[in-house]
Amino acid sequence: MNREIRNIIIIGSGNVAWHLGKRITKKGFNVIQVFGRNEITGRHLARETGSEFVSEISLVRKDADIYILSVSDDAIEGLADRLAPAEGIFIHTAGSVEMDVFKGIIDNYGVLYPLQTFTRHRQIDFEQVPLFVEAGNTDTLRSLKEFASALTPLVYEAASATRLKLHLAAIFACNFTNHMYYIADMLLKPEGLPFEILLPLIMETAGKVSVMSPAEAQTGPAARDSLQVMDLHLKILGSTPSLVEIYDLLSKSIRAACETV
Amino acid sequence: MNREIRNIIIIGSGNVAWHLGKRITKKGFNVIQVFGRNEITGRHLARETGSEFVSEISLVRKDADIYILSVSDDAIEGLADRLAPAEGIFIHTAGSVEMDVFKGIIDNYGVLYPLQTFTRHRQIDFEQVPLFVEAGNTDTLRSLKEFASALTPLVYEAASATRLKLHLAAIFACNFTNHMYYIADMLLKPEGLPFEILLPLIMETAGKVSVMSPAEAQTGPAARDSLQVMDLHLKILGSTPSLVEIYDLLSKSIRAACETV
Repeated sequence: MNREIRNIIIIGSGNVAWHLGKRITKKGFNVIQVFGRNEITGRHLARETGSEFVSEISLVRKDADIYILSVSDDAIEGLADRLAPAEGIFIHTAGSVEMDVFKGIIDNYGVLYPLQTFTRHRQIDFEQVPLFVEAGNTDTLRSLKEFASALTPLVYEAASATRLKLHLAAIFACNFTNHMYYIADMLLKPEGLPFEILLPLIMETAGKVSVMSPAEAQTGPAARDSLQVMDLHLKILGSTPSLVEIYDLLSKSIRAACETV
Repeated sequence: MNREIRNIIIIGSGNVAWHLGKRITKKGFNVIQVFGRNEITGRHLARETGSEFVSEISLVRKDADIYILSVSDDAIEGLADRLAPAEGIFIHTAGSVEMDVFKGIIDNYGVLYPLQTFTRHRQIDFEQVPLFVEAGNTDTLRSLKEFASALTPLVYEAASATRLKLHLAAIFACNFTNHMYYIADMLLKPEGLPFEILLPLIMETAGKVSVMSPAEAQTGPAARDSLQVMDLHLKILGSTPSLVEIYDLLSKSIRAACETV
């Protein structure tokens, strides 16, 4: 029999916990406690979700329907150990932690992985957040899917191995992409040029891949195989060896991709 | 005395020529000829701009106010040589070609560099396209600035050395970013996951840097220094050495950037 999720305890008060907690509350679920090490963000999230803040794990209630562990990857197992035994389902929200981290600790467990980047003071349209669920048994899977579907229309099942690939893809599409923005910013700063000047280009680059594949969208000197331009760029970057290495490696990777097509 | 620009000849019919030509026509300027090697795109652009298409350089008129050379970097000088002598201003639209490519060929010359990625079948909001101008003398600079200002409100002066840095920044923010999307796509394909699943994340990653710096926006395992997660990812990527290299290099670069802040 699958358990209906109504009463929720949030473990952690970082960015994922924050946005998930607010969405959960907005959708009419009952957050009963927030547990966290950070008193400031923890109390803030408790206030936002109308729940109690606890900073001692022994004070976490045992009767919640679900315990959402939104903490750093290496803290999940230890916390689960100390939270058990409990009545409800244990889930984590990490991209690269196997669901089986809960095995032997609790009967009902799973994962709810949001494929999005969360920032504390930035609102997110949760209708646009894909949630990937996985569970240790079919009843729990049914409960989790029902719960996730109340939060977003974009609910998918994904086993741990698939989720890992999703997380990797997200690192390229988000973390590494942001680092490209960072390097661009570093290149403009000494010229006294504001980063804002790149925003139309950045938005267009992101928008293009909603109507064509990244393979089709590729432009630039590497795609055109403009050796002279690339040599010139490597010369200019010469004073920053790490940038030479990145420019060279990514240009070669683009060439290889273009030759594959 | 600065020359008022009214009659325009476009040399080339690639993506930049295409979008610039359409904008120019829309803004009431008179495109009189399109010269190009490619008959199909050349005739198409001539039709769109209500001008004549010529495929022989000897047929290009000598009396235009401006000749916009939107061709590949290494074709600019040779074409300018064959177009001269002429009455009007010669400009190119390239990021990494010095303005002085025109020196000794024609008296009045300059550059009009659009900081945007253009795709043939995708409309662009030209009000959002920054144009960087440079000219060989003050009269020409005044003419070019007036012309550019009719096309977009975002007109800036930039010497060749600055333009080169802008182009480099654009390569990171656009070309390399698109390649990150491409790799993400490659990672999802074997799992049967559609690229579309990443679009909300991609748009949010791009949107974030309009309200905070890329340094502040950085998230992910490298930013958190999650060695275990990064090791796991490198292991998974192991079958594709080029991806291992990119993941490793960019993660280290993110670490270095986070330690600088």
